[in-house]
Amino acid sequence: MNEIKANWKGNMSFEANVDGHKIILDADAEVGGQNQGPKPKPLLLVALAGCTGMDVVSLLKKMRVKIDDLQISVAGEPSEEHPIYYKKVKLTYLVKGQDLDKEKIEKAVRLSQERYCGVSYTLQQVAEMDYEIIYSNEEVPTQATH
Amino acid sequence: MNEIKANWKGNMSFEANVDGHKIILDADAEVGGQNQGPKPKPLLLVALAGCTGMDVVSLLKKMRVKIDDLQISVAGEPSEEHPIYYKKVKLTYLVKGQDLDKEKIEKAVRLSQERYCGVSYTLQQVAEMDYEIIYSNEEVPTQATH
Repeated sequence: MNEIKANWKGNMSFEANVDGHKIILDADAEVGGQNQGPKPKPLLLVALAGCTGMDVVSLLKKMRVKIDDLQISVAGEPSEEHPIYYKKVKLTYLVKGQDLDKEKIEKAVRLSQERYCGVSYTLQQVAEMDYEIIYSNEEVPTQATH
Repeated sequence: MNEIKANWKGNMSFEANVDGHKIILDADAEVGGQNQGPKPKPLLLVALAGCTGMDVVSLLKKMRVKIDDLQISVAGEPSEEHPIYYKKVKLTYLVKGQDLDKEKIEKAVRLSQERYCGVSYTLQQVAEMDYEIIYSNEEVPTQATH
């Protein structure tokens, strides 16, 4: 069982505690918030990026495929009517490295999306999802410890 | 369109940027992480708490119902097989205040769950969800500015 708590901090702000880590949630000024932290709904996209990102780096490690860097972007298109949910989600994996094994990287991403990532499975119930993998051999000097 | 980015920081850690706010995501040591931040999946529960919490406080404000405090707990029961998603979610709203208008508070929570909260709508597709409201007239001296 996973448990989290969120305490109201006035106006639209909540302070969440998840496994000892704090996250301040807030809304934009136009709906009475002060933008002190992320809005709740985009956290779904953050959860998705983290879930599939961790799948991919751990699968690539098992496959002994080396990459220098991985950057994940997620765009979500909200529905027009209440309840407002993401009706389309687009994931972009930017993989950096030299002589990348594209076949295995594609396999790792596919395994995450189709089998392992429970956040993706959840969002897929309401959102049309697709993903793209972009490869780059640009040097990543500051993150050479990856 | 909502957009977020998450950059790999080595091992299982990712740094997400959502509307200028940073969130470090990480995994537990047993799967190669260092617990530097929340795990991705419980962020779904955080998003749910924030989404419904903001609905409830703004609905109560419109209804001119005063409360002193609101604490939301969310428990999620993961599925046994991959993909691991939340198959059951239990929300608890702890509402504090004097002479609380329980009927209107119940209505605000119901409107959030059944009509407004897009995170709830999304999770309901895969999870059996239920909620409970607990009332307390305990004084909340340190949060009297609510």
